[in-house]
Amino acid sequence: MKLLRVGTAGAERPALLDPDGTTLRDLSGLVADIDGDLLADDAALDRIRAAAAAGELPALDAAGLRTGPPIARIGKVVCIGLNYHDHAAETGAATPGEPVVFFKAADTVVGPNDTVLVPRKSEKTDWEVELAVVIGRTARYLGSPEEALAHVAGYAVAHDVSEREFQIERGGTWDKGKNCETFNPLGPWLVTRDEVPDPQALSLKLWVNGELKQDGSTADQIFPVAEVVRYVSQFMTLYPGDVINTGTPAGVAMGRPEPKPYLRSGDVVELEIDGLGRQRQEFKDA
Amino acid sequence: MKLLRVGTAGAERPALLDPDGTTLRDLSGLVADIDGDLLADDAALDRIRAAAAAGELPALDAAGLRTGPPIARIGKVVCIGLNYHDHAAETGAATPGEPVVFFKAADTVVGPNDTVLVPRKSEKTDWEVELAVVIGRTARYLGSPEEALAHVAGYAVAHDVSEREFQIERGGTWDKGKNCETFNPLGPWLVTRDEVPDPQALSLKLWVNGELKQDGSTADQIFPVAEVVRYVSQFMTLYPGDVINTGTPAGVAMGRPEPKPYLRSGDVVELEIDGLGRQRQEFKDA
Repeated sequence: MKLLRVGTAGAERPALLDPDGTTLRDLSGLVADIDGDLLADDAALDRIRAAAAAGELPALDAAGLRTGPPIARIGKVVCIGLNYHDHAAETGAATPGEPVVFFKAADTVVGPNDTVLVPRKSEKTDWEVELAVVIGRTARYLGSPEEALAHVAGYAVAHDVSEREFQIERGGTWDKGKNCETFNPLGPWLVTRDEVPDPQALSLKLWVNGELKQDGSTADQIFPVAEVVRYVSQFMTLYPGDVINTGTPAGVAMGRPEPKPYLRSGDVVELEIDGLGRQRQEFKDA
Repeated sequence: MKLLRVGTAGAERPALLDPDGTTLRDLSGLVADIDGDLLADDAALDRIRAAAAAGELPALDAAGLRTGPPIARIGKVVCIGLNYHDHAAETGAATPGEPVVFFKAADTVVGPNDTVLVPRKSEKTDWEVELAVVIGRTARYLGSPEEALAHVAGYAVAHDVSEREFQIERGGTWDKGKNCETFNPLGPWLVTRDEVPDPQALSLKLWVNGELKQDGSTADQIFPVAEVVRYVSQFMTLYPGDVINTGTPAGVAMGRPEPKPYLRSGDVVELEIDGLGRQRQEFKDA
């Protein structure tokens, strides 16, 4: 299933995208919202599937409706850094021996087509297309990659917007350059796990002003999704509604020759992952 | 005012501690809970003050009641590292030129006297008493330290529990050693700003099994509270209900001679800050 939330910010309603790829179905009569409680409730998800199959879900007129982030009340956003061979190489970093973990605050998450703000005094706002993993079951000290995948509810496109000066040149951890307002567009859909049989075979693409900048595959991940989830669960408890951004392939602005093409007000970034949909953000000054 | 939340986890009710320091007053007839909405609502806080002054708040029988974290639905927990001259020195780190920022997930927050879990495979679980700042008004790009203090709702005791191997020896950022389950006891009270006229004149103490280990003062902070709030607001937006842990003074296990006295199951840690109350945690294996 492709689950989403549509409506003005703070007033989104839960919806389902039909297999035809165009018709939205209203889920607000069936579930309160798409959140950790729903993701942890297999019976509720099965009720959505059954109602959809029976043609019982009313169509939703999508005209003029904004798409919000696909999950209400995201718990935490764990991020994996340098997780693609080609991206680690372009940054000049050594291949990590174990996953590099940092955080984005849940309040940085916006809808897939919302405006993204270039922070004040930013000279190095950069793009990163990423596969986001959405947790569906509470996970502690998982024993194997297979067990880890069973705790995944689904997948989504994430844009891990990054300010490189704040991230790298201002002391401390990377978090300083990862948490500016609007820095994590997520969606359009939460695609349930059953529709993504192999999370290591997804093409990821990102365009800036129509020009293809990132063109990678999750096959190039150093630590695959199942290992990332297993690994993170050794250090922290994962809850339904938590998100893990699993890293970005090569092609970011930081990895290019001078003058590096960092983002400015007016730039338009588009992102796409196989089967997970497409995002489009216009950048504006904060 | 000293605001708190009492009751079993997930079912806490809001309460006020009388100036006598012993009587609890039930706030659940007056406010839904102590959260970001309340902290941003000066009129609601004034109604609590008025009702307390008029003797209108019913006493709450505290017998057997657990104290929860003082804020429901914490937004994010921003942490400042190496923010005391004596602690930076004991770790061997240079004095930071600007604040070091890292994160704890809000789901690590527990009540001030709840059990803290020593993570599996942990050899280096350490203590850190900290002054927590609770945000009361949305803050973006604050212009001055004075403006920053006006965005603070109040203060609380925080325990920034840390696993040093996970934090420092496993690659990536510090976040890996800061986000284990139960790693951020908070409370007992949220003490409103008006009762803390000078946040740079507070004594902080921490004991392990009755032995005094940390005995510092916020006067030793490299970046004082007002500057920390102003600084963080340049990189991210702070919302009502967000928390900033402002760093720890010297005396942690990591800063001591070998064999360093890291925490083990059965250890008891107590923490106190002037006017902000006292915590007590027993440590148990996860």
